[in-house]
Amino acid sequence: MTARNLAFDQWVGAMQARIENVLDIHMPSPEVTPNKLHHAMRYAVLGGGKRVRALLTYATGGFCGAELNLLDVPAAAAELIHAFSLVHDDMPCMDDDDLRRGKPSTHKQYDDATALLVGDALQSLAFELIATPQFNLAPEQKNQLLYLLAYATGSRGMAGGQSIDLENTGRTLNQSQLEIMHQHKTGALIRAAALMGAHTIASPQHAKLAAIDTYTQAIGLAFQVIDDILDTEADTATLGKTAGKDAQDHKSTYVTILGLDAAKKLAHDLHQQALTALSSFSDEANRLRGLADFITQRQF
Amino acid sequence: MTARNLAFDQWVGAMQARIENVLDIHMPSPEVTPNKLHHAMRYAVLGGGKRVRALLTYATGGFCGAELNLLDVPAAAAELIHAFSLVHDDMPCMDDDDLRRGKPSTHKQYDDATALLVGDALQSLAFELIATPQFNLAPEQKNQLLYLLAYATGSRGMAGGQSIDLENTGRTLNQSQLEIMHQHKTGALIRAAALMGAHTIASPQHAKLAAIDTYTQAIGLAFQVIDDILDTEADTATLGKTAGKDAQDHKSTYVTILGLDAAKKLAHDLHQQALTALSSFSDEANRLRGLADFITQRQF
Repeated sequence: MTARNLAFDQWVGAMQARIENVLDIHMPSPEVTPNKLHHAMRYAVLGGGKRVRALLTYATGGFCGAELNLLDVPAAAAELIHAFSLVHDDMPCMDDDDLRRGKPSTHKQYDDATALLVGDALQSLAFELIATPQFNLAPEQKNQLLYLLAYATGSRGMAGGQSIDLENTGRTLNQSQLEIMHQHKTGALIRAAALMGAHTIASPQHAKLAAIDTYTQAIGLAFQVIDDILDTEADTATLGKTAGKDAQDHKSTYVTILGLDAAKKLAHDLHQQALTALSSFSDEANRLRGLADFITQRQF
Repeated sequence: MTARNLAFDQWVGAMQARIENVLDIHMPSPEVTPNKLHHAMRYAVLGGGKRVRALLTYATGGFCGAELNLLDVPAAAAELIHAFSLVHDDMPCMDDDDLRRGKPSTHKQYDDATALLVGDALQSLAFELIATPQFNLAPEQKNQLLYLLAYATGSRGMAGGQSIDLENTGRTLNQSQLEIMHQHKTGALIRAAALMGAHTIASPQHAKLAAIDTYTQAIGLAFQVIDDILDTEADTATLGKTAGKDAQDHKSTYVTILGLDAAKKLAHDLHQQALTALSSFSDEANRLRGLADFITQRQF
């Protein structure tokens, strides 16, 4: 296992601060009409989260030689889509969760109708930020990013994964069915966040794209396995969301299907797969290596 | 008042059939996983509606000299955004309406969670259809369409209008406040649908763009005034949605603010404004003229 080093931790802190600032700048001010909606959008997005998707965009962009300045918008767009999905997922008609990132979830802080519109508007904003003439990227690359993001967000990506999740609540899935659900529900956006970083340059190397694809498939799944382990082992205060929610909701998880030890072994194996995908690259892949460690060693 | 003629009515019928087919082709099959979500998406979109936004895209595209084949995708994207907004707007936490286009609304036919995901996935699909490499339009134009559509859908467009609407339920608005709400809630997407038609060509004439802008502002508002009149005068069977819903929900409408006669006078004046905006153009603007009549003379 690669040891995380100070330089990597500093980079994570710097990029987390950077994306917070980028999101703050690109979200409409609460002074702008409709004020309540803009206030609630900012509540849902700012001031929390590990920003894993943004970190991935920055890391793959760096890996492929992209300019840092051009990575801000796709990184922010990925985080906006993620935030929108959390807002809708927490609503009473979905997972009905009152707590998110240690705060009342958006529908608790405001109301259900506002949460619905917050999610809708965050989704549009993600696409708007990439498409706007103010984002100075070549039109071909913009289209590529927009396509990657839209596909990953929709019915064959994230929304589809949530639908599969809902359809199977109360049923016991096997490992392969669980994997298909998670590939849609969280894997698709993680992959899009990573590929967007690579595709801000005109012709990313094929070998690098292939490595990113294998790597993100492994860490996307590892992310979910760790989520399931933490949902069992950690407490609500540490998680910032309700612990034990999946068991309570009778959802299949890697822990319920495999048991805790085998789930930990799977997370370890996926971590190794992610690192193996990067083995033919030198220092240029260090941030991706660090992120694989970051994701599998996280405590919340 | 311009008389609608047979040729125009035939064009409307042909374009309505055309967009139905385009939407059918571009929506994932219910055979594709997740089946339930894809089934529900098709239920929400296909088999109904006047397709005013698609007609506008086709009409402005024709007005500016665009190829018909290139107008299918933006026309479909506008209809997908419209359908998504209806699905979310009908949900219990919003307008709580059980009937849409003469059928049970999506959350009644399926369930609230599915309706939420249907709306989310229809929004993504609208952007995906424009961004996909399979849509053979120049990247510059694609970005322009994506930007117009995303801006019109989000917090400074449609979602923002719904938020203003919610905030003011039970309060009496003045005419100017009502206008601002409708410019966001329905006007923004109508304008985007029209401008997308124009912007499928690289450099639409400035005079035409300006005319489209004035025209759509007038017919967008006229559309809403007529909606308010029909909500008062028509019955549920004719409307295909619950009649009298606005009064029941204590919402300000043009009829409650101005009275029925003044509302009809306003619709007439807006119709004239729309035609005046086109007065320097000859036959090339006939479909836009016909659409202005179509919108102000509609009975449902």
